[in-house]
Amino acid sequence: MKNKKIVIIGLGLLGASLGMALKGKGYERLGWTRRKEIRESQLALGVIDKTAESIEDLLKEADLTVLCLPIPQIIEYCSKFAQYFKKGSIVTDVGSVKEVIVDSVEPLLKKHGVHFIGSHPMAGTEKSGPEAAKKDLYDNAVVFITPTTDNPESDISFLEQFWQSVNARPIRTGLVEHDNMVAHTSHLSHILSLALTLTVLECENDKKKWRQLAASSGFRDVTRVTSSSPQMWREIIENNQSEAIDSIKGCENRLKELRKIIEQKKYDLLQDEFTKGKTLRDDWMKFKYGK
Amino acid sequence: MKNKKIVIIGLGLLGASLGMALKGKGYERLGWTRRKEIRESQLALGVIDKTAESIEDLLKEADLTVLCLPIPQIIEYCSKFAQYFKKGSIVTDVGSVKEVIVDSVEPLLKKHGVHFIGSHPMAGTEKSGPEAAKKDLYDNAVVFITPTTDNPESDISFLEQFWQSVNARPIRTGLVEHDNMVAHTSHLSHILSLALTLTVLECENDKKKWRQLAASSGFRDVTRVTSSSPQMWREIIENNQSEAIDSIKGCENRLKELRKIIEQKKYDLLQDEFTKGKTLRDDWMKFKYGK
Repeated sequence: MKNKKIVIIGLGLLGASLGMALKGKGYERLGWTRRKEIRESQLALGVIDKTAESIEDLLKEADLTVLCLPIPQIIEYCSKFAQYFKKGSIVTDVGSVKEVIVDSVEPLLKKHGVHFIGSHPMAGTEKSGPEAAKKDLYDNAVVFITPTTDNPESDISFLEQFWQSVNARPIRTGLVEHDNMVAHTSHLSHILSLALTLTVLECENDKKKWRQLAASSGFRDVTRVTSSSPQMWREIIENNQSEAIDSIKGCENRLKELRKIIEQKKYDLLQDEFTKGKTLRDDWMKFKYGK
Repeated sequence: MKNKKIVIIGLGLLGASLGMALKGKGYERLGWTRRKEIRESQLALGVIDKTAESIEDLLKEADLTVLCLPIPQIIEYCSKFAQYFKKGSIVTDVGSVKEVIVDSVEPLLKKHGVHFIGSHPMAGTEKSGPEAAKKDLYDNAVVFITPTTDNPESDISFLEQFWQSVNARPIRTGLVEHDNMVAHTSHLSHILSLALTLTVLECENDKKKWRQLAASSGFRDVTRVTSSSPQMWREIIENNQSEAIDSIKGCENRLKELRKIIEQKKYDLLQDEFTKGKTLRDDWMKFKYGK
């Protein structure tokens, strides 16, 4: 991996954090983002080793290009700059959905002898932009990678080693499995959190004032992800529509079941459901965070 | 307030934290809990200044008794020990619902010349027990107090000063208003968080393994409250049934609306909803935490 050139396109939360995490790992870190002042500030801060005026000048040098961009731009950039990526190089991304991206991007780049493998690091916060970046964002984070039958094993291994070098845990998965999985574990959380926020706070001013006072740490945490970028989440849901709908329907049914239990005053059963949920969640916390 | 005797009944998270917060505030802190070893360990730790074998011996000394007990026991203890509370003293509680408690407890104690005023501190974590207690649990926490027309202003002021002495912010509200408000701002969060946990993690083992891997910090925060005490939450919902049902129905409707927007591919509208949610939540964070 030594002396390989990594080009990071997009220096927001994920891109800038990646630059920080790669520091001192033996790579040359080249970075580009649309706004010149951010390219320059990130270079000055040591988040990247080198930048350039034009994206083409960097792409042609890359051994690995990491597209840290919103979903529509991942697809747009691969289409627009397909001919500028270095032949034989590997391109990956950090998009939260994979089927739409891989299906459209892989054939585009293949024509130019460039190898695309999708990545999705399970890392991020409700914040965005380079000012929210931190060097440990990828520490211990699962990164799903979605190789297809077109990708040679050597490319996949290279990408795995890359993610391991920022202390992340690459795990191979299929495109459809990935999109179903994240619809449940991630996209649904955002929809639910939004539904809760609107239910509680979109009401007459008088009620709202009281509720603002009463809402506390439970509400704060359950709704944290509602403070994420609206545009990003629109794009994620838009590009994983059918899986998102399925996960919402599943949750609507659960909610209706719980409401019926309460309506029928089956409180022992309600307690059993709370206990089941607590066990599932506590087991998951142990599995994921060891506590 | 100097030299007043405060009796804390129940030394779990809320009771033990209250003892800690009252230290050095000029009160004598008397504490009792069912299990002898906890009474003694909390005395040894300086969480309370004094304890006794029998609850009656402490109740008769109290200027203010704070019942830090689960909802059913608040009612049970007031009924069982009504004759032992000091005549003219004030009794309050920390229960998460107020109408059921005040309606049953106030007349019981009144017969014995004891004045009940309900309190509900918006403080707590998903943990429970004295080992989870901390001295700053009440710092800046809103405490709803629900006096009735029976309570003289001097008693209400005394209770307000008491809560202020642990850095909490007492706010007067009506019983029905309180229970509607917390159904939305608190109880609904717990039901939703449970519904999400079950939707994501109660599935075939194969899917579950993948989802356990994929679930990340968003899922962790949205489901945090699912790790709370199942029995406590059963009791809270049981004692605020109709308000809880209304809040769940409201959220079911929101969720259905959001799903329909996604089904109809009205993604600009979806983004508007995300934006509205973010604005409401960010405004609330500024109001509540100043950031």
